[in-house]
Amino acid sequence: MVQYMTTRLDTSFGALSDATRRGVLEQLARADASITELAEKFDMTLTGMKKHVGVLEEAGLVTTKKIGRVRTCQLGPRQLEEEMLWLERYRQRWEERFDALDNVVQELKRKEKSDERKNRK
Amino acid sequence: MVQYMTTRLDTSFGALSDATRRGVLEQLARADASITELAEKFDMTLTGMKKHVGVLEEAGLVTTKKIGRVRTCQLGPRQLEEEMLWLERYRQRWEERFDALDNVVQELKRKEKSDERKNRK
Repeated sequence: MVQYMTTRLDTSFGALSDATRRGVLEQLARADASITELAEKFDMTLTGMKKHVGVLEEAGLVTTKKIGRVRTCQLGPRQLEEEMLWLERYRQRWEERFDALDNVVQELKRKEKSDERKNRK
Repeated sequence: MVQYMTTRLDTSFGALSDATRRGVLEQLARADASITELAEKFDMTLTGMKKHVGVLEEAGLVTTKKIGRVRTCQLGPRQLEEEMLWLERYRQRWEERFDALDNVVQELKRKEKSDERKNRK
């Protein structure tokens, strides 16, 4: 299960690590499109666009179906739930970590001031 | 500016697309660690871990400093704000898209029923 989740996050974050692929998702959120239309829109060869769509399809972010000679793409079933959760958890931990470091710094400052006062006496 | 953001999202999502790198971030959210400690923890060669840390450093997710012979890693300044925003916006559009498709399906169903009724008369 953990292994499954791990691979899934690897695949989805990998799919999102390319501006064209993110653009394709944004485009498909507006309307379904054929691979040819997407290739034109992103000024790319058919082969290049097929590869990108393949990566998105593997990540469950896009589904395609072929009707006649045209392959149409639409948004896939995945809503990137786990990816959001991972990022949210990370941001929370990040804040906690820096709050903790901040506390240490404040504590050191207080100690320094108190030592100064003692030395002055 | 847009180009800058684009590259940044490419780099950060790319950095997150590996389970070890996500694990290193989670580890550093608990406590700073040297590259040697991280390599041991993740059962990896020093060279391998150095590469992963390099990718995280390039994405602004980790900073390192060398004191004597030890390179210590800590969480970097980036809290993955833009990445969260991208995912949130995507999820919203995804829902709107499927709501719109759902409306089309409901409309077709209504039409079908009304046609059936008309044909029965």
